Amino acid sequence: MSMPKKVVVAEVCPRDGWQNHPVHIPAEIKIKYIKKMVDYGARKIEVTSFVSPKYVPQMGDAKEVFQGVQSYLDEHGVTSFVLALNKRGVEDARAAGVRNVNFVLSASEEHNLRNSRRTIQQSLDAFKDLAKEAQDLHIILSMPCAFGSPFGDEVPLDRLRWLIDEAEQVGVEEFGIADTAGISNPENTRRVLRAIREYTDISKVSLHMHDTYGMGLANAYVGLEEGITALDSSLAGMGGCPFVPGAKGNIATEDLLYMLHDMGIDTGYDLNLVNQTAAEMAGEIQASVVSCQGSLCKHR
Amino acid sequence: MSMPKKVVVAEVCPRDGWQNHPVHIPAEIKIKYIKKMVDYGARKIEVTSFVSPKYVPQMGDAKEVFQGVQSYLDEHGVTSFVLALNKRGVEDARAAGVRNVNFVLSASEEHNLRNSRRTIQQSLDAFKDLAKEAQDLHIILSMPCAFGSPFGDEVPLDRLRWLIDEAEQVGVEEFGIADTAGISNPENTRRVLRAIREYTDISKVSLHMHDTYGMGLANAYVGLEEGITALDSSLAGMGGCPFVPGAKGNIATEDLLYMLHDMGIDTGYDLNLVNQTAAEMAGEIQASVVSCQGSLCKHR
Repeated sequence: MSMPKKVVVAEVCPRDGWQNHPVHIPAEIKIKYIKKMVDYGARKIEVTSFVSPKYVPQMGDAKEVFQGVQSYLDEHGVTSFVLALNKRGVEDARAAGVRNVNFVLSASEEHNLRNSRRTIQQSLDAFKDLAKEAQDLHIILSMPCAFGSPFGDEVPLDRLRWLIDEAEQVGVEEFGIADTAGISNPENTRRVLRAIREYTDISKVSLHMHDTYGMGLANAYVGLEEGITALDSSLAGMGGCPFVPGAKGNIATEDLLYMLHDMGIDTGYDLNLVNQTAAEMAGEIQASVVSCQGSLCKHR
Repeated sequence: MSMPKKVVVAEVCPRDGWQNHPVHIPAEIKIKYIKKMVDYGARKIEVTSFVSPKYVPQMGDAKEVFQGVQSYLDEHGVTSFVLALNKRGVEDARAAGVRNVNFVLSASEEHNLRNSRRTIQQSLDAFKDLAKEAQDLHIILSMPCAFGSPFGDEVPLDRLRWLIDEAEQVGVEEFGIADTAGISNPENTRRVLRAIREYTDISKVSLHMHDTYGMGLANAYVGLEEGITALDSSLAGMGGCPFVPGAKGNIATEDLLYMLHDMGIDTGYDLNLVNQTAAEMAGEIQASVVSCQGSLCKHR
């Protein structure tokens, strides 16, 4: 199990990191930090989500943020993508000029119900209709809870296979699998990835792991061993439970880069600039930096 | 590479967790929490260190703490051990009634100089004299920076072999290898452990990893894959840079247990009680809980 030479790290802080942050972040601040993410080397950024502002008020400025960064991203050859949960979201995204959409369909029945008030079958039907019709968009199928559900419902391996098969039949060629609650252990991550490798090309699959229980990098490492070359992370580890100081959210971009670079894996990111940006952003939007790299820790 | 069925987790919070804590912890509070550690299932506890109170004031009550917990530990069949850096420390420990001593000898020349103001050769000579003489004590050789130095000096694999060989010649049968600064990546951890396995029985070796850059559990997992069945951890992840909220120190006992139990590995610990104790202790001694398990996070 050898390590890849190069890994594509997608910066998801603007969506997954900020969406539940308890302090409102004005659109101009978001735009400023997304541009800084471009500056520190991100070449794939999840810039926002087109969802109901009633449920996710922090993302109510999706169009403004997307349009505020797009020309800067284009100039630097950065791929932007946004999240959508349903047809309405995809249509709003298209109207705003979006070209790449992460369509979210949870592998957990319970999580999908809570997240989009639909059964998996209903979401899948809607997704297939959308994917067939949206030939102008690049659609990625993102599957939260692919490694298990935090709500206790079972997520059989066959379900992932079924979802990926169905999506491939309507032309989808890119998949995201997520451990949304950070509950997967490395053995389980290996088990799920090995199953996926049996029926699809693992280079089509990106990994989105949370660090809730400290297993984020362990799972990322196992992912690399199993052939993963695309990973999501979030600046300053944002995205955790916002009411617990120090609680871990997404894998911190700084932590992931530190591990990858130290193993000789190229990402194109400037880690020093990432650290500076993490500290600056945390100060400005009142977030905690949960990575040591992003802090002023001199304990090394 | 299969997982072990059982792992011995040593609780090192009373020494490595508390030693640099900026708030003074009175001996009676230490004694109270060490007893709680016994209650939550720890059967191996590093209770204090016999070092200069001038340099480590928080450990100035070593004798009082050791003697305050010893009968409780004995009643519950718990093995206690303490840290020492030199002959003076070992003698003080013996005088206090200690039976198990972790003698620290850094694998990094620079770290050893800073830690004990001696070269490795000087520390090794002193250690061998001590080990020969101290037949009444069980001596463990602990090697910080075994996976690399944070000060930039090289730590060749041969050095670990040399130190282990020399120690075995004077009857030492137990070793601790530590990533003191949390800088080892999982590939490097695997490389070091594979080298060690070539010349010694890995069941004699325990792993002490820090989580400074988020790689703690990734390294612990690789350790298990490479045959490690003894690991150190610290309640609430204490032991990091005390001046940075959320900065990670040792692997949090809660996080390690969560991962181990979730992989079906038995430890004998009661995780719920560990979590309760982490929250209680953090409140009482003004520490941050850096693990989600130990917090009130409901994000799962």
